[in-house]
Amino acid sequence: MRYDIAIIGSGPAGLSAAINAKVRNKNIIVFGSSNLSEKITKAPSVDNYLGLYNLTGEELKNVFKHHIEEMDIKITEERINNVYAMGDYFAIMANEKMYEASAVIIATGIEYTKPIKGEEEFVGKGVGYCATCDASLYRGKKVAIVSYNSEGEEEANFLVEIASKVYYIPMYKSEYNINENIEIIKDVPLEVRGDISIDSLVLKKSELDVDGIFFIKNSISPKYLVPGLELEYGHIKVDRNMQTNIKGCFAAGDCIGKPYQYIKAAGEGQVAALNAVSYLDNKKHS
Amino acid sequence: MRYDIAIIGSGPAGLSAAINAKVRNKNIIVFGSSNLSEKITKAPSVDNYLGLYNLTGEELKNVFKHHIEEMDIKITEERINNVYAMGDYFAIMANEKMYEASAVIIATGIEYTKPIKGEEEFVGKGVGYCATCDASLYRGKKVAIVSYNSEGEEEANFLVEIASKVYYIPMYKSEYNINENIEIIKDVPLEVRGDISIDSLVLKKSELDVDGIFFIKNSISPKYLVPGLELEYGHIKVDRNMQTNIKGCFAAGDCIGKPYQYIKAAGEGQVAALNAVSYLDNKKHS
Ligand SMILES: Cc1cc2nc3c(=O)[nH]c(=O)nc-3n(C[C@H](O)[C@H](O)[C@H](O)COP(=O)(O)OP(=O)(O)OC[C@H]3O[C@@H](n4cnc5c(N)ncnc54)[C@H](O)[C@@H]3O)c2cc1C
Ligand SMILES: Cc1cc2nc3c(=O)[nH]c(=O)nc-3n(C[C@H](O)[C@H](O)[C@H](O)COP(=O)(O)OP(=O)(O)OC[C@H]3O[C@@H](n4cnc5c(N)ncnc54)[C@H](O)[C@@H]3O)c2cc1C
Repeated sequence: MRYDIAIIGSGPAGLSAAINAKVRNKNIIVFGSSNLSEKITKAPSVDNYLGLYNLTGEELKNVFKHHIEEMDIKITEERINNVYAMGDYFAIMANEKMYEASAVIIATGIEYTKPIKGEEEFVGKGVGYCATCDASLYRGKKVAIVSYNSEGEEEANFLVEIASKVYYIPMYKSEYNINENIEIIKDVPLEVRGDISIDSLVLKKSELDVDGIFFIKNSISPKYLVPGLELEYGHIKVDRNMQTNIKGCFAAGDCIGKPYQYIKAAGEGQVAALNAVSYLDNKKHS
Repeated sequence: MRYDIAIIGSGPAGLSAAINAKVRNKNIIVFGSSNLSEKITKAPSVDNYLGLYNLTGEELKNVFKHHIEEMDIKITEERINNVYAMGDYFAIMANEKMYEASAVIIATGIEYTKPIKGEEEFVGKGVGYCATCDASLYRGKKVAIVSYNSEGEEEANFLVEIASKVYYIPMYKSEYNINENIEIIKDVPLEVRGDISIDSLVLKKSELDVDGIFFIKNSISPKYLVPGLELEYGHIKVDRNMQTNIKGCFAAGDCIGKPYQYIKAAGEGQVAALNAVSYLDNKKHS
């Protein structure tokens, strides 16, 4: 089955895109979290979203949830690792599945954590952002997973069945629900070292000899998510229609630039959706 | 008294700008209508504003009103006829008053009525958009007022005390609350005729010899509102920060381009306000 529009991200940008595409009768799929967005739920108090005064982040989440539920929009709880432009459609890769859509809206927010030294240099040479995707490369090898959220636990549990050694470096506090063969390292990663490919991960208090390092973040950098996507100062480059350099691929919200704010993101999500709808309608008639 | 930011327009773009500037502790003034915007109140049903599902336009207006009232934002019911960039500040002209502000946000929406033939050609040569402003030019002369809303009635009542003859051509249906010396013409204006200055207004069923014609519209074209403002395809040209070609002058909403939608306008109002705040803060520190 091919969807009209796939929306990646369930923050205000993605949700606003979803309701606007749905109003125009498009067949959509929204990827994200049933909790919508941490950046919604964690807000202490929101006053600057016109029409919704003095809400907690949790209340704002419920208001948004109510809206999409009333419009029968569901969230597919799946993390997208890659989006490939196939010419006429997009192939959207979740861990084990592939989805197809004629147009795509990237609304993945922005990752606040900066890459550590050497991280970006060694992407594809030992550094990756999706352990389950690249697991086969590390059969019998040593791997470190630096995870900024609990999703890394699942990746670690999967990897430990293939790799000879898995280090898990959690950058968040919680109970860690992981396999006993995994070694938990509570330390701060500082640098990826290597030559042609990586040799080690340097931490504050130790150094780990590894063949691969995965960084599990809330949001993957758009340039790894969508190969070929043009960026500008670290954000996805779009025109006034929220169109990226890739035909049929639109973007909205924090991922396209500042200010990082809810209603700015929601407004852009709407613009992206309406232009994706025009794009599809023009395609049909040409 | 000089305001930090003057916001012209009380639709979603202007209101969102107002709440965001207020959150940042700026001293603001908002010009518009206590009814907010006809384009809000007249909407039959609104489903596509994330967080507010299935509201009538009237309900949406009340939700917005509640928000600004809670934040102690008042609307100054005044129609702005001109905004002049004075270098360090803006002079904002209402019918009989002048206001000053260090930055301006234009959020005046868009006028759907197209200019009639000859209208734009004769602007300043007999055609105007503010009868009370230019009244003195028409002492003892014949004037026609083509009005798209009831605000024209007040202008006609004012003008009839100065001009020798006032024709009132209402383009809306209602009771007309006008002076008995004013002649009401129920007809459709087609063309402004003239040579160096205007000679007559041609209507479907008649032709009126006049020295001046005023068109009273819901929104003045931005190029008459702010002399020197750069337009692009009929909309105010802005960059991604909602900054116009005039330093310190920002714009948001329908007046900067399509799609014409509430939350797109609100998002842009926020961006305009936050950038106006940065502009003011930078000015102070330089
Ligand atoms: C504590 C806090 C308080 C804030 N308070 C305010 C405030 O008062 N007012 C205000 O206007 N703004 C506030 N903000 C900023 C605001 O939260 C963001 O600007 C806004 O959430 C951005 O919306 P977005 O839709 O672009 O992205 P996000 O809200 O970040 O949503 C992105 C979504 O995409 C999902 N996602 C990312 N990558 C993928 C992938 N590959 N596959 C599937 N899903 C993916 C994420 O999990 C997330 O659900 C606050 C932020 C924080 C952190
Ligand atoms: C019948 C109808 C139904 C609609 N339904 C929807 C819908 O369901 N969903 C949706 O997203 N959009 C809808 N829209 C579109 C939406 O109304 C507009 O896109 C939106 O109102 C634009 O907001 P704005 O703030 O840019 O301008 P506006 O809402 O037009 O507000 C501009 C304000 O500025 C004031 N103003 C103008 N010039 C001056 C001046 N010189 N001095 C002082 N004040 C001035 C005006 O009086 C007005 O109050 C609808 C429009 C109409 C007409």
